[in-house]
This record gives sequence, C-alpha cells and structure tokens, in this order.
Amino acid sequence: MRTIGIADTTFARVNMGAIAARTLRDLDGRIQVVRTTVPGVKDLPVAALRLFRDQGAELVMALGMPGKAEYDRTCAHEASQGLIRTGVQEGKPIVEVFVFEGEARDDRELTFLARRRTEEHAVNACDMLLHPERLTRRAGTGQRQGFRDAGPTGAPSPKRRIGNAIARYA
Amino acid sequence: MRTIGIADTTFARVNMGAIAARTLRDLDGRIQVVRTTVPGVKDLPVAALRLFRDQGAELVMALGMPGKAEYDRTCAHEASQGLIRTGVQEGKPIVEVFVFEGEARDDRELTFLARRRTEEHAVNACDMLLHPERLTRRAGTGQRQGFRDAGPTGAPSPKRRIGNAIARYA
Amino acid sequence: MRTIGIADTTFARVNMGAIAARTLRDLDGRIQVVRTTVPGVKDLPVAALRLFRDQGAELVMALGMPGKAEYDRTCAHEASQGLIRTGVQEGKPIVEVFVFEGEARDDRELTFLARRRTEEHAVNACDMLLHPERLTRRAGTGQRQGFRDAGPTGAPSPKRRIGNAIARYA
Amino acid sequence: MRTIGIADTTFARVNMGAIAARTLRDLDGRIQVVRTTVPGVKDLPVAALRLFRDQGAELVMALGMPGKAEYDRTCAHEASQGLIRTGVQEGKPIVEVFVFEGEARDDRELTFLARRRTEEHAVNACDMLLHPERLTRRAGTGQRQGFRDAGPTGAPSPKRRIGNAIARYA
Amino acid sequence: MRTIGIADTTFARVNMGAIAARTLRDLDGRIQVVRTTVPGVKDLPVAALRLFRDQGAELVMALGMPGKAEYDRTCAHEASQGLIRTGVQEGKPIVEVFVFEGEARDDRELTFLARRRTEEHAVNACDMLLHPERLTRRAGTGQRQGFRDAGPTGAPSPKRRIGNAIARYA
Repeated sequence: MRTIGIADTTFARVNMGAIAARTLRDLDGRIQVVRTTVPGVKDLPVAALRLFRDQGAELVMALGMPGKAEYDRTCAHEASQGLIRTGVQEGKPIVEVFVFEGEARDDRELTFLARRRTEEHAVNACDMLLHPERLTRRAGTGQRQGFRDAGPTGAPSPKRRIGNAIARYA
Repeated sequence: MRTIGIADTTFARVNMGAIAARTLRDLDGRIQVVRTTVPGVKDLPVAALRLFRDQGAELVMALGMPGKAEYDRTCAHEASQGLIRTGVQEGKPIVEVFVFEGEARDDRELTFLARRRTEEHAVNACDMLLHPERLTRRAGTGQRQGFRDAGPTGAPSPKRRIGNAIARYA
Repeated sequence: MRTIGIADTTFARVNMGAIAARTLRDLDGRIQVVRTTVPGVKDLPVAALRLFRDQGAELVMALGMPGKAEYDRTCAHEASQGLIRTGVQEGKPIVEVFVFEGEARDDRELTFLARRRTEEHAVNACDMLLHPERLTRRAGTGQRQGFRDAGPTGAPSPKRRIGNAIARYA
Repeated sequence: MRTIGIADTTFARVNMGAIAARTLRDLDGRIQVVRTTVPGVKDLPVAALRLFRDQGAELVMALGMPGKAEYDRTCAHEASQGLIRTGVQEGKPIVEVFVFEGEARDDRELTFLARRRTEEHAVNACDMLLHPERLTRRAGTGQRQGFRDAGPTGAPSPKRRIGNAIARYA
Repeated sequence: MRTIGIADTTFARVNMGAIAARTLRDLDGRIQVVRTTVPGVKDLPVAALRLFRDQGAELVMALGMPGKAEYDRTCAHEASQGLIRTGVQEGKPIVEVFVFEGEARDDRELTFLARRRTEEHAVNACDMLLHPERLTRRAGTGQRQGFRDAGPTGAPSPKRRIGNAIARYA
C-alpha cells in the first residue's frame, strides 16, 4: 500500500477532499488515503507536514478554494509559498489544487471546475507516486487541469484554443 | 490539559487576546491558555515560536489588526509569511486571526468584527486540537469567520449572498 | 545584565543607532548595548544574526530609513522578510524600526519622526525583555510608534484621529 | 561521469526536457542525464530536490513554460522562489529555464524560443559543472538566452539593439 | 589573509566582478579574492553559498545588472530574497551590488554607475570585514553607492540634493 494525504478546507464551497479521496481510491487499489481538514488555505502547509510526519503520507494533495477579493489572492499566494517550502523541507511532493472562485461564472460552473480539476490532479498524484514514466510521456504536451488542455505547439488544429463557454472544458 | 498559546499586539485597537482567552476557556475545560503580547503583527512569528518552545503550546492563535495604509498590508503579508514559516519549522499549527481596519465602516463594526472573528477562530482552534473530525464534517461548506458563511455551492437559497449591511454578519 | 543588540545603517539620514543606544541605557541600568552598523537595510538580517550569536544579544533592534522610490520599498520588504526569518531561525525577537523618507514632509519632520519612533520602540524592546506584562496591559489599545496612538475602538473622543499637522504626533 | 538532472512539466507546450537532454549529451560525453517530469512549475522545486538526493544530480535544469495570465506569473514567481530555496538548502545549482507564453507572438516563435533558450542554458549548465572558467571569460558581456545577446556596454555597434522581428534572435 | 568572495554574472553588460576584484586588492593587501561567475542574478545565491563553503570566503560581494523589463525586476527581487536567505543560513554577510539598466540614461552612464557603485561597495565590504568601526562612524549619514550621498538630515546645504545630470554623481 502507498499512502497519499489529503488536506482540504472548511472555507471551500465544494467538498474537494471527498472528491479527491474517492478518485484516488478508484484509480488504484494500492492507494491508501489519509485526510485532514483545516479552516483555510493558509493552514494547509502545516496540515501537509503533519500528514507526512504523523500519518505516513508519501505525497499530499492540498486542496483549496480562494475567494475573489484581492486579499484572498494574497492569502493563496502565501499558502502556495508555504506549501512549496513544506515540500522542500520534507523532501516530499505536494500537489496543490486551488480553484479560485473568480475562475467560474456561477456556482454550477464552480462546482464543475472544482470536481474536474481535483479529479485530474488526483490522476497526476497517482502517476507521480506509481507511474512517473506516464508523466514523462506527457511532457511538453500542454496539459491543463479543469480546463481544456492547451496542447503542444505543434498541434495541427488552431481550433483547440477557440470555443464557446462549454468548450472551455471540452 | 491541552495548551493553546495566544499571541496578540498593542497595535490592535480591540483586545483580541482577551477575547480569545475567554472564548477558549469557555469552550472546553481541558484547555489551558498561555499568552504573550507584542508591539505589532511582524513580531507575532517569534512570539508564536516562543509559546511553542518555552510555554508548551500545541497550537497558537496569532491575533492582529493591520491598519488601512498600503504599507500596513505589506506588513500583514510579511507577518503571514512568517507565521506560516514558523508553523512549518516547528510542525505545529498557527491559526492566524487578522482583522483589517479597512474591512469595517466604523469603530463599532470593527469591534464587532474583531470579536466575532476571534470567537469563531477560537472554535476552529479548539476543534483542530480536540475534535479534528468536526472540521472534516464542515469540509467544503464555505465557512467564513466574522462575516456570514458563504455556504456550499449546492445551497438552495441564492439569498445567502445578498443582503444589507447588517446581513453581512447574519 | 541583559544584552540588547542594535543594528543600524549608513544609508539612514539620522543616527538612529545612537538614539536607540542612549534611550535603552536611560531606560534601565541593567541593559547592556552591543551595536553594529551596516550599509543598508538588506544587510540588517545577517547583522542581527551576528549580534545574537557572537555578541550575546537576547533581542535586537534593527533600525533603518528606506528611501522614497519604489525600489527602496522593495528593498525594505526584502529586509523585513529577512529579519522575520532571522528571528524565527534563531528563536529571538527582532524589533524592526523602519522610518520611510516618504512619511515625512521635510528633513525636520523626518528627524523628529526617526527620533520619536526609535525612542518608543526602545521602550517596547525593554519591556519585551524585562517587563512583558506591561505589553499585555497595553494589548488592543492601538499603540503607534512615532505618530499619535490610534487608541482603542472604545475610546470616547473621536477627535483623537482628527488634527492638524502637528497633532499627528501629539 | 558527471550527472545533470532535468526536471520539466506536462504543462509546457514544448518538450523542453527532451531538448535539454539531447543537448547535454551532445555537448559532452562525460555528462549523464537523469530526468523527471511533473505537472507544473510549482512542482519543480521538490522534483529538483529528489534529483539531487535520490539520483545523484550535481546540478539541475528546471524547465517550465508559464502561461499568459497574471495568475500564471504568480505561479512562476512562487516556483522561482522555491527553486532558489532548494538550491540554497542543498548547496547545489539549479539552472532555471522558464519561457513565458507571452514572450512569443505565435506558436512557431514559441517553439523556436523554447528550443533556443533551452539549448543555450544547457551550455551554461555544462560550463558551470565542467568549465567554470568559461563563464568568467563571458562575465559582464551581456549574454541572453533565447534572444540576441545585449552585449557589453562598450560594444561599438548600437545596431545590436535595433532590429526587426527576426533580428530579435540573431 | 582575509578572503572575500566575488560572484558575478554573464548577463551583466559591465565586468563588475573584475572591477570589484581590482578594487578590493587595491584597498588592502590582506584581502584575498575568490571569484565565480554564473549566468544571471538568480544563480547568485548558490554561487555565494559555494564561495562560503568551498572557497573559505568570509564575506561575498554579489554583483548583478538586472534588465529594464518588469520581469527583470521580479528576477532581481527573487535573487535578493535568496541572497538574504543564504547570508542568514550561513551566518555570513553578502553585500549585494545590483545596478538596474533603467537607472542610467545610456550605456556611458550605465558603465560609470556600475563601476562607481561596485567600487564604493567594495569599500563597504572591506570595512565590514576589517574596519567595522568605520561604518559606525558613518551611521546615519545618508551614504549612497553610485549616486551622490543624500547626507544627514542636519546637513546645512540644501543644494546637496539639487543638481543637473552630472551632479547626480558628484
């Protein structure tokens, strides 16, 4: 069994932690999930640290949903810096999954985006731990999580980056 | 007994440290409070560190009230980065409770907001230490401290986010 | 004897280090001062570290006077981050005393402000080391260094925050 | 044999990792390449750390292609801070090779720029490890990677900095 | 013999490392110089670290010339943060000497400014290591490196801060 930690927040408006846990378990039976929930994104670095140290996580998914205000973006920035610091201090990867409220036009799109980005990053987390060669096969291919992939520069169809609202996720 | 540290400032215009101490003691008889006061928010990281190391705190609430000027926001940003660094270095959680003077319209609202945010974060701090499962039950439910909760995206009533001034805190 | 370190700069236009040393000695006969001077504010973090490690300082006052340009504000920001990091790494408090040239209207006001802020922070430094209970008694009272105190939100007189130029310091 | 690590991303739209690996091998037969691919630039610091610790890299090239949005620039900033932190923590050099999508006018130019910058930084990486005296010989000569060199201030021809689109890379 | 390290870049358009080395040797026969050159300012923190650890430097001069674009300023900011971190981690001073291309009007002024600032900071570096009392004698006197000194606030002549282009350096 390999252990992946999940740290999420009560601030988020979608239960991203539950989505991540379910996706990880579906992806590979060898993955064991440990989870902790904290108030906001600035609490995620220490939460990740404790998952590494106290619960044996080899990789942590840090999930958050910063608000729209400028102050919220500052908080997210501080949280990101702290997550990177924590990973470097502990020598273990942290996959940051942040969904900004301002990215979506309404609650329905926000829910959709949060789910999809979380699921796609759960695949990344699983590959980082169990199938690193899969990531190298996708190197330089313009992968995006939540939105449509940008694709590699050599891709034949310029339509890939033009589209209506729904196409943003196609 | 579990020990929670409180670090607050002489710069703040509301005695947030006293509010936090009283709330924590009311919440659970098993919580013991240790407190230190410093001049401003930039002094909070070392104050938190000393509460961890010298006074046996397992978790610290760091309370501050940055002013309205741009420079004050920079100070708050530096303080936040330092608090996250301290938590990660020590491996112990710090619950940051900052109230910005510019968030409130007048002294009365500022007092109200400082009290309410401090109280709600005292509940978070207590839960993080004694009842972590309660935080996971609130995961993804759009909790806010001081202002009204945003609620989960699936919430039936859009009125939750519309309201007059008083309703901001309802 | 208790030892307080003073780190100041040749960039500053007022001899803040001398003011701090004199004030500390006047405040309490038990305080011994050690001092080092560096070119600019970005050199203060290492200077503070050396005062802690090589000269036995228990607390350091870091004094600087950043210029008016945007670049000077960036330097001050980097210096502040470094000072907080140093304090957290060493587990000892650093009282930052920065006076920005742009805060004052002319050289006379700048001199006045630098002196006053340095003196008031010397009192803070002394209290942090010898009388921490005095700081807790001032918790949440809106203390300011150099300018007039903002006062607590419950203060009766709104005139406290209205005034002419001279009243800024009253 | 000397070992250089390559960390690149699936987010990038050009396979910068493959270009770097090929260039390094062509430059010097004594260079052995180890490579890891992660989702985005914020994952590069821990990836570099693991290449140092687990795979014996003496130097790491960290390759990424941040997007055009303001948020992407923030991510790149956080990644850069993390890479510098990692290098300083481990005491080993990390050559950051970031190509911003906004630097190029179209996919063709982006491909060209990514390739050229990667190749030129591979030469730097090789020289840092095997021929440090070559870098000192180029000290102060206005080297640029990807775009045309700015040249030293004493250069005779002012035309060096004037040119049409193609000349940007000449 | 005392050892000062010099770290400079191939990105700079003036050979600041050579100027620093020559000036240091001229200043005091007891100073031994060790030098390393890296591609850009973001490589300076690790370069300084290696000069401390591998080459016995007691102090490092970190020389760089960031470009005019906003991105270049971000790089310089990250480099400065990394240099401060390195100094604090190692407990040894790093004198940062950055000249921004945008500070000068043309190549001739840029060359002049780079030379003068480097020379004046070499004096600072020498004094920090061998004559710290000289810095304390200059405390609060408004020293500037490259441009004219601002002077202390009590200086009699306001003309010190008024002048034509040439007077900027007088």
